[in-house]
Amino acid sequence: MFQFTLTGTCGRARTGRFVTSRGTVQTPIFMPVGTLGSVKSLSPEDLHELGAQIILGNTYHLYLRPGCDVIERFSGLHRFMNWDGPILTDSGGFQIFSLSKLFKITEEGTTFQSHIDGSSHLLTPEKSMEIQRCLGSDIIMCLDECIPYPANREQALAALERTTRWAQRCKDYHESQGPGPHALFGIVQGGMYEDLRRRSAEEIEAIGFDGIAVGGLSVGEPKELMMEMADINLGALPQEKPRYVMGVGTPEDLVELVNLGADMFDCVMPTRNARNGQLFTSRGTFNIKNATYKYDKSPIEEGCECYTCRNYSRAYLRHLYASRELLSYRLNTIHNLHYYLDLAGKMREAIGKGEFDTFRKDFYSIRNTE
Amino acid sequence: MFQFTLTGTCGRARTGRFVTSRGTVQTPIFMPVGTLGSVKSLSPEDLHELGAQIILGNTYHLYLRPGCDVIERFSGLHRFMNWDGPILTDSGGFQIFSLSKLFKITEEGTTFQSHIDGSSHLLTPEKSMEIQRCLGSDIIMCLDECIPYPANREQALAALERTTRWAQRCKDYHESQGPGPHALFGIVQGGMYEDLRRRSAEEIEAIGFDGIAVGGLSVGEPKELMMEMADINLGALPQEKPRYVMGVGTPEDLVELVNLGADMFDCVMPTRNARNGQLFTSRGTFNIKNATYKYDKSPIEEGCECYTCRNYSRAYLRHLYASRELLSYRLNTIHNLHYYLDLAGKMREAIGKGEFDTFRKDFYSIRNTE
Repeated sequence: MFQFTLTGTCGRARTGRFVTSRGTVQTPIFMPVGTLGSVKSLSPEDLHELGAQIILGNTYHLYLRPGCDVIERFSGLHRFMNWDGPILTDSGGFQIFSLSKLFKITEEGTTFQSHIDGSSHLLTPEKSMEIQRCLGSDIIMCLDECIPYPANREQALAALERTTRWAQRCKDYHESQGPGPHALFGIVQGGMYEDLRRRSAEEIEAIGFDGIAVGGLSVGEPKELMMEMADINLGALPQEKPRYVMGVGTPEDLVELVNLGADMFDCVMPTRNARNGQLFTSRGTFNIKNATYKYDKSPIEEGCECYTCRNYSRAYLRHLYASRELLSYRLNTIHNLHYYLDLAGKMREAIGKGEFDTFRKDFYSIRNTE
Repeated sequence: MFQFTLTGTCGRARTGRFVTSRGTVQTPIFMPVGTLGSVKSLSPEDLHELGAQIILGNTYHLYLRPGCDVIERFSGLHRFMNWDGPILTDSGGFQIFSLSKLFKITEEGTTFQSHIDGSSHLLTPEKSMEIQRCLGSDIIMCLDECIPYPANREQALAALERTTRWAQRCKDYHESQGPGPHALFGIVQGGMYEDLRRRSAEEIEAIGFDGIAVGGLSVGEPKELMMEMADINLGALPQEKPRYVMGVGTPEDLVELVNLGADMFDCVMPTRNARNGQLFTSRGTFNIKNATYKYDKSPIEEGCECYTCRNYSRAYLRHLYASRELLSYRLNTIHNLHYYLDLAGKMREAIGKGEFDTFRKDFYSIRNTE
């Protein structure tokens, strides 16, 4: 079912589209994060109005709450949460690494303790596939081994090799279940080592996936290092498959990574920061709690077409935020996601016109005016 | 501008409508509470979709946050919060009584300490009028003196007399500002003393207001006593003016008070309880956090036409609530407000058809089936 078509290039930047059984996605695209079966504070209608084409669900979280036994009664996450568009689910590996109280990796899989109740669980590559299939995911991610930053070469190599072995197990299990609507993406690791990044990309690509993700970035390394690793991986991946840079990033990161040939992104930044009052604009970010905005009748950003900017002032948004009103989170989230999704749309347009370089230059020059 | 028309009666129950410069309101009506310039978790579009005809704003809260200096820049609360329908504001008196850390009542007004920062403020009848005018309220409430339950006769009498004197000062100040779109309602007090309730109603009515509210109920007294006092007041008030029972109540309270001739209600119960997981149905209430609902694919109430019931299962709502997802508050609030507004609508219909007794009987018989 899954099918990716490259529709245009401009330097290394590219536009494309992929087709899932639940709809077509135009790339480059940003995927809002719906950790627990809800993009925090938003309804599916909000997401459609924002032009969200695909959202992300977190396997680790959904496995623990509400659990697959609940979601399978609804034949998957879509009907459970009332979202009819495509969903990509992660493998659970990164959340175990970043959230669980205790975890231990063996060749079989990762044993971890729930961050909620301390209960013990084993996540194997096969189990991750099984859970993601139960979630009804349109794009399933392989279970990989994440390593901290910094990590020495030995650690990075061991994780790379295990990631490859696990990727093969994921593929084997996935295929053993017969044909279905779920696409399967592999994940490249390799720490911050150029040769390991190259080797991982080759090994993962050799197994054969519907798309390839660059994992293990944005884990605390300097920005230049992240871009260097992304550059190596994105430059080495095949043209005919979608490339997903996981867990990244700032608007600048998106522009730079698209410039290097990335197609897909996810990050909690627009949604999480919205709930902390930080709002994104083409000139940069500001925090709505600042007293400067007390009497400010202007929208978050002049000309922004999001629901929040069309209807509310900074003064009102500041008041809601200062008063911890629930509507604050929704209005801020709508704006920030609009910013990210609109940025992706503008990049697609610029690439389509062969003007991505100009777009990129303008993107920075506007940011430097304030 | 303000104009009330009695459109039908059925026993003591009545239907009517009042016209404000921002729209017409059909009575009996329930007014969702928008304490701080937002009905918690909802947008104005949500309120319109729910059929909310008028909402309530809290003068005490809005005076403290964001303050009149902010709201006057927007020419009132409507534009500030993006709600174009009618707004009724309370006087601030009850909130001082129930929320402020320290307050002292003198003939001039009430000195109180903010529950937010402890700052000291004086609310006089004139000041309350001024603030409510600044808020652009469509229906302004007189400042009254609230007393606790139980209160002895001496306390109740003193508060009644002060309430009358303050009502006159409110009226005088209001008129001194010249004609405008703001209606002014008086408030009846009198504690739990029949003769004082009658006397207060007479005194308030004699001053001459656009509508009359029954205040000082639902402050901890037994339900029978509340109904007894409401019965006395509602029986004594003129037919040609709207009657508003403040801060009440449960669905049963609404049915009983409409049966006694009440027209308007406000209460935080549907919205606050929604945020605590308690949901209203025609059979009674239940709490969505209960494990019973873990796999429950049915909506909160079969046949309910609210957005939440049309799109989400109890299992999903339980999951959102258990996970403290922000969407939980909105979905629960939408259902509960729909329940209250629909109840008011059904009462109007039943009164219109001359079938309010049957409606009331059915209302209770459905509740007793589970």
